[in-house]
Amino acid sequence: MAVEGIVQPDLLGTALTQMREDVDRHFDVLLPVPDDARAPLVNAMRHAAIGGGKRLRPLLLAATAEMYGVTRDSAVRAGCAVEAIHVYSLIHDDLPCMDDDDLRHGEPTVHVAFDEATAVLAGDSLHALAFDILISPQVTADPFIRSELVATLAKASGMDGMAGGQMMDMMAEQAAKGDEGGEGGFDLHTVTRLQQLKTGALLGASVEMGAILGRIPPEGRTHLRNYARDIGLAFQIVDDLLDHEGDEELAGKALRKDAAAGKATFVSLVGADRAREQAQVLVDQAVGHLASHGAEADVLRAVACYITERDY
Amino acid sequence: MAVEGIVQPDLLGTALTQMREDVDRHFDVLLPVPDDARAPLVNAMRHAAIGGGKRLRPLLLAATAEMYGVTRDSAVRAGCAVEAIHVYSLIHDDLPCMDDDDLRHGEPTVHVAFDEATAVLAGDSLHALAFDILISPQVTADPFIRSELVATLAKASGMDGMAGGQMMDMMAEQAAKGDEGGEGGFDLHTVTRLQQLKTGALLGASVEMGAILGRIPPEGRTHLRNYARDIGLAFQIVDDLLDHEGDEELAGKALRKDAAAGKATFVSLVGADRAREQAQVLVDQAVGHLASHGAEADVLRAVACYITERDY
Repeated sequence: MAVEGIVQPDLLGTALTQMREDVDRHFDVLLPVPDDARAPLVNAMRHAAIGGGKRLRPLLLAATAEMYGVTRDSAVRAGCAVEAIHVYSLIHDDLPCMDDDDLRHGEPTVHVAFDEATAVLAGDSLHALAFDILISPQVTADPFIRSELVATLAKASGMDGMAGGQMMDMMAEQAAKGDEGGEGGFDLHTVTRLQQLKTGALLGASVEMGAILGRIPPEGRTHLRNYARDIGLAFQIVDDLLDHEGDEELAGKALRKDAAAGKATFVSLVGADRAREQAQVLVDQAVGHLASHGAEADVLRAVACYITERDY
Repeated sequence: MAVEGIVQPDLLGTALTQMREDVDRHFDVLLPVPDDARAPLVNAMRHAAIGGGKRLRPLLLAATAEMYGVTRDSAVRAGCAVEAIHVYSLIHDDLPCMDDDDLRHGEPTVHVAFDEATAVLAGDSLHALAFDILISPQVTADPFIRSELVATLAKASGMDGMAGGQMMDMMAEQAAKGDEGGEGGFDLHTVTRLQQLKTGALLGASVEMGAILGRIPPEGRTHLRNYARDIGLAFQIVDDLLDHEGDEELAGKALRKDAAAGKATFVSLVGADRAREQAQVLVDQAVGHLASHGAEADVLRAVACYITERDY
């Protein structure tokens, strides 16, 4: 977790801890267990949404928003909307018909702790909750800003974003099956595009939504978009590296699945050393995009540096 | 399909046919198949969204909106957003881990025509698409109206609406298993609440969103809410009756599943005759709520009458 170099070492750790507490507190209030037959549904949503996860997306959103003077409460609430989308996607990705994972954040996945049908519905309900959170007057009283936030989140999560990337990922696995002994079917260009959709779109939306809350017009967001694109790609390269050589216990989930499936990843395509170098280049580039900012961008800088230094 | 009595016989048939064409045309434009690995995802979305379904929800939305002078294009687009939510819910409800249905509108369900993982993602992508459609400037240029639409749709589809109702429905099935030979565990009050969430919430949102587009303030929507509540419940009672005594070929889906599961329904709880009477009372009541309107509400009246006269 320690981040060294250009920013003070504990800045990110403090920010992440605080964000985890804030997000947990909000989800606890947003998800009261009803006294009827919906109780297992809401318990499943709570199981997935409370207590686990790095909360990197809400942190990116809040760190960007706070650069432009947005109140913390507003930024954290919008961050919870993005996190609700992220959590729903993990529930569905873990399903037996998708990645079939039993473990997430060191806990049983939702379909294991509950059942598959409840997991499908818990994901769907968190998906709807995200938009419900976003249109709350406590995020913003300005309906124009509100609808820009909704537009950004809907685009990033659908077929032209996260869900589309997940579909490409499934096709990558199928391509690998038809290409045993080869490089897994997909080339570097396609894997990059896949990851930009699957992971990059929602990370990018987090930063973008922070800037929208901060009333920065589209033309003023270019450097932030570039920052988000670079850290998104670096994040995924490191994910591939950790899948390749990480510690399952630290990760709290099964690793080495891509290699077992013979799937094309950054590591399988260019090798671990070049992948590691590339991730570092992207992180340096990401920090460079923030050159016009002073100390107010230190959390965003710390996030970028953390990406290549994290061990889970 | 013929509706007799208070309105001219072909009004509803014409309106439904026109709406089916309009909705199909919009989804065709909204869902271009990309030239990459996401193609199966978008083909699965098209399979579910184009060519099937009565389009009752877009019709309710447009019929309400047009009462208040909203342009047809705007109303139809908002109707497509509601329909995208409805279609996504059908895809997920049909999954093997949920209702496990192979047939929908006389065609193979998405997980049969494609596979389960694609069906999960196609549902998720249509869910996101709904909000993407809703924030389009072609629905409304007014960001306040837009965010009211988003709020209404998000509430109606999540844990306090459709998804919550589907969870209760699953619990009803489990309750039936624990109560063999009894009345299926759930009482009339609980079944009513279940159906108000599972089906009523989205039908209600359709009417409500039409009124929102028509700039009718909440206090002016009470009679429409009452209308929607009554037709929603009547619709579900007739669904139970059709499941009990309908024609599978006409329905284009498997019937008699509730009785086989011993699940509590309106029919199992009060009997077919009383259920039929109750549906008629609700339809009459629904038409009564429209008494303050003239001929401009004839489509809504026709929808109410159609509910007890439909045979699929």
